[in-house]
Amino acid sequence: MTTHKFEHPLNEKTRIYLRVESLLRQAHLASGFAENHQYQLFFRALFDMVEIFEQLQLKSELAKDLEKQRLSYRHWLHVEGVDQEALTSLLNDIDVVHKQLMRAERFGQALKDDRFLSSIRQRFNLPGGSCCFDLPALHYWLHLPLERKKQDAQKWLDSLKPLSDALNLWLKLTRETGQFKAQIGRAGFFQSDADEANILRLHIPMEHGVYPMISGHKNRFAIKFMSFESGQACTQDVEFELAVCS
Amino acid sequence: MTTHKFEHPLNEKTRIYLRVESLLRQAHLASGFAENHQYQLFFRALFDMVEIFEQLQLKSELAKDLEKQRLSYRHWLHVEGVDQEALTSLLNDIDVVHKQLMRAERFGQALKDDRFLSSIRQRFNLPGGSCCFDLPALHYWLHLPLERKKQDAQKWLDSLKPLSDALNLWLKLTRETGQFKAQIGRAGFFQSDADEANILRLHIPMEHGVYPMISGHKNRFAIKFMSFESGQACTQDVEFELAVCS
Repeated sequence: MTTHKFEHPLNEKTRIYLRVESLLRQAHLASGFAENHQYQLFFRALFDMVEIFEQLQLKSELAKDLEKQRLSYRHWLHVEGVDQEALTSLLNDIDVVHKQLMRAERFGQALKDDRFLSSIRQRFNLPGGSCCFDLPALHYWLHLPLERKKQDAQKWLDSLKPLSDALNLWLKLTRETGQFKAQIGRAGFFQSDADEANILRLHIPMEHGVYPMISGHKNRFAIKFMSFESGQACTQDVEFELAVCS
Repeated sequence: MTTHKFEHPLNEKTRIYLRVESLLRQAHLASGFAENHQYQLFFRALFDMVEIFEQLQLKSELAKDLEKQRLSYRHWLHVEGVDQEALTSLLNDIDVVHKQLMRAERFGQALKDDRFLSSIRQRFNLPGGSCCFDLPALHYWLHLPLERKKQDAQKWLDSLKPLSDALNLWLKLTRETGQFKAQIGRAGFFQSDADEANILRLHIPMEHGVYPMISGHKNRFAIKFMSFESGQACTQDVEFELAVCS
């Protein structure tokens, strides 16, 4: 039985983190340019990220959040019953990633400074705007040997490595704080308190035919299940699994 | 030796035709959903087309243009030395496609009326906006069996078939009017007169390392060749092939 996996951020900053994680994944997957048109996914992901970086000081936010995680893990140092070796290794990982992050330039600066990328960025977002006559330089680039294109893509992605490492570590540690527990949405509705939560994770069996609409914040949230076929609120009980990650 | 193939529209309407052709191709290629993330290409192409259809009365423009082609081919009826069988068959193709087009509803109307598509269209264009929490209904749809997704995609694409058939025929006949001829861009520059031309087609050997910047209109055009690596105008002679299609 297929299960619908779902994540929901409980604050605006985590929402951005999850979006950037998804764009980084998309850019990496597409950077092999194995299929025609994959370049569209690649550049779209890159340019979406540049737009997000312009709106938010992602670097300092992420540094603060990693610092918080470091402090909370430090509390477990010298506590009996805690695997001190694993803990030290984890704290070391946070240190490395945090240092890399602090040394990094502003996210996306290398992409904005790249002559080729900045020459194609504006028109790329026109509807159907990636035709050869709209973007002749891009069209030339697409005719270059695959190896050259991969190298360019790698260079652009490498410039985001400090972001990618820090974001992946923060999200990994955040997701690990939540344990999946069986829950029931009575008459298609579920609500609960939380404690400084960042992400809700849900597993919903596809047989219910529903998707969740979630509202709330770090200390309280509500889940309304909607029927996909009718587009209306579901009035049946919905069994699902929920992990609250903080 | 790889050759850089390039097309340039000489008026705004043909520019839109070529964009829509490229979006239709992208939607068809992606509609197999063989790879992760292909759904992004598929829906982006669909929504880009809906946006274009809102800006332009594409149906009546295309009907007028097909009518013009029909009239010009009719001149060859009963002319000695013209293959009358092929001509009759072509005129019949134009008739069929033109009738289909006139019977069709406004392009994209079925897509705009589709509850699922209209529920995801707005947020889809946010930077990184196709995450599950931004578009829970889309995320549910992605978990449906592949066959169901292909059926939905086919249904949406079928609604564009009158457009697709008419556009492909008009572009095919237009492209066939041009013959490739060897040309030289002296010191990276070429200009010429044309006669009610719609599309320029270029073959440029990659060894020149250049891409074309084209300006002009149906009766006159200029091609400036730019060096890809330097981003500056090329000052060398550039050998290329050119077809002028009207």
